[in-house]
Amino acid sequence: MEDGQEGKGPLIIIGGHEDKKDERLILKEVARHAGQGRLVIATVASHQPEGYFEAYKTAFAALGVTDLVELYVQERAEAQDMEKLRIFDGATGVFFSGGDQLRISSQLGDTPVERRVREIHASGGLVAGTSAGASAMSDTMLVKGKGQETHRIGDLHLAPGLGLVRDVIIDQHFAERGRIGRLLGAVAQNPRELGIGIDEDTAIILRGRRFEVIGSGGVYIVDGGGVTHSNIAEGAEEEALSIHDVRLHVLCHGDRFDLESRRPTLAGAQG
Amino acid sequence: MEDGQEGKGPLIIIGGHEDKKDERLILKEVARHAGQGRLVIATVASHQPEGYFEAYKTAFAALGVTDLVELYVQERAEAQDMEKLRIFDGATGVFFSGGDQLRISSQLGDTPVERRVREIHASGGLVAGTSAGASAMSDTMLVKGKGQETHRIGDLHLAPGLGLVRDVIIDQHFAERGRIGRLLGAVAQNPRELGIGIDEDTAIILRGRRFEVIGSGGVYIVDGGGVTHSNIAEGAEEEALSIHDVRLHVLCHGDRFDLESRRPTLAGAQG
Repeated sequence: MEDGQEGKGPLIIIGGHEDKKDERLILKEVARHAGQGRLVIATVASHQPEGYFEAYKTAFAALGVTDLVELYVQERAEAQDMEKLRIFDGATGVFFSGGDQLRISSQLGDTPVERRVREIHASGGLVAGTSAGASAMSDTMLVKGKGQETHRIGDLHLAPGLGLVRDVIIDQHFAERGRIGRLLGAVAQNPRELGIGIDEDTAIILRGRRFEVIGSGGVYIVDGGGVTHSNIAEGAEEEALSIHDVRLHVLCHGDRFDLESRRPTLAGAQG
Repeated sequence: MEDGQEGKGPLIIIGGHEDKKDERLILKEVARHAGQGRLVIATVASHQPEGYFEAYKTAFAALGVTDLVELYVQERAEAQDMEKLRIFDGATGVFFSGGDQLRISSQLGDTPVERRVREIHASGGLVAGTSAGASAMSDTMLVKGKGQETHRIGDLHLAPGLGLVRDVIIDQHFAERGRIGRLLGAVAQNPRELGIGIDEDTAIILRGRRFEVIGSGGVYIVDGGGVTHSNIAEGAEEEALSIHDVRLHVLCHGDRFDLESRRPTLAGAQG
């Protein structure tokens, strides 16, 4: 954890549909960073959790993770039950699976369970998330918004996330669902937020404020810091977004990025 | 034609699926720019032209275009027949409909028909194109390439177009088919080419080297001039594109853009 900050653990943020059967490049990194402790698979995002845990159990078993437990919360009250925290005994990692990111934030926000996840992260443990679990990582998260269309001014689809990484908005299934439009719309609303769009079977490993890309797809960085004009505040509800001078990076496996300087560094380069 | 150059006529370049039944904003502009002369609907891009012409005949009839004729070429030999040129008698505009852009270039390239289209444009007449007809406008055109995925290094899907506008690569059905990935790939190959991605029911009206956006969607400008790194020449065939420091603009109805300075100007602004 050479790039660590304040002793915090790494975040592995995955764009969904990570390979679970073949090379399992991303899950291997999850297993490696979780180390020898318990790995908690949080299936909270799902309305119907059955099946998610079993798929990960099979995938992780071959990667040497022996202590795998499921955290599911049907109702928010369960997340307020101190007994539930026993699931985290000996945990060195938490992995949020896919579903609906609003379920993660609405069921866990401001509960003992959320505080325990935060403690694990703060004390050097791993927090990973895929799909909805990726979106939920940031202060502000995208909860919906159509793919495959240019953003419309009236579309506001943001909600408060878990806040494990600040000043970014994360989107997933990015190229596959044509989501550049909605991420541009989110960034236009406040260019302080750096947009990060992660393709399927692709992840970023974030330590402190630096990350590295792994996996088969791309990671899109939408930097609105230099934007000279947008119609986001003045346009009519149905109007298409206009935004000038966005800086866009596409990163692939091995590329690195610094969230503070907002600059990419090449694979193998110092940084 | 205040921004005209060398007396050339306007180009109206449409991202496909322009409204043909309701407000018909884009087709109105086509009708207006074609003026009182004949409008030639070139359905060459289509393997099965039946139906295209009739749809435009109905759409344009209500817009005051009375002299509408169809240009279809089943085989290239027809485009080399001087008799075919009679279709252009009195024509003040040519409109290329959708289909396959490779049919336009392979059937018409270096034929008397293509030269007549060029003459009409050079003498101030309108040339318009939608979908495949839009892609065919530039020197180099995108002919295929998957949507909804990050560009792969091995994908080379460019071919020589009609060359009515230089130093740009045009893509259409842009947000709707998730095509930012393939346009980034094309621009990475040579950042001299400015990428222009046009949404459905959206168009640019180009006069000389300046254009204005009309319609309900967005127009994406991918400017690779400032790119500091890409893996396009070194990456393996299946590797995802990495490209750093792309400048991206999204333009909406009323926005203007100058291809020479590569700068947007706002609606109503001088320029």
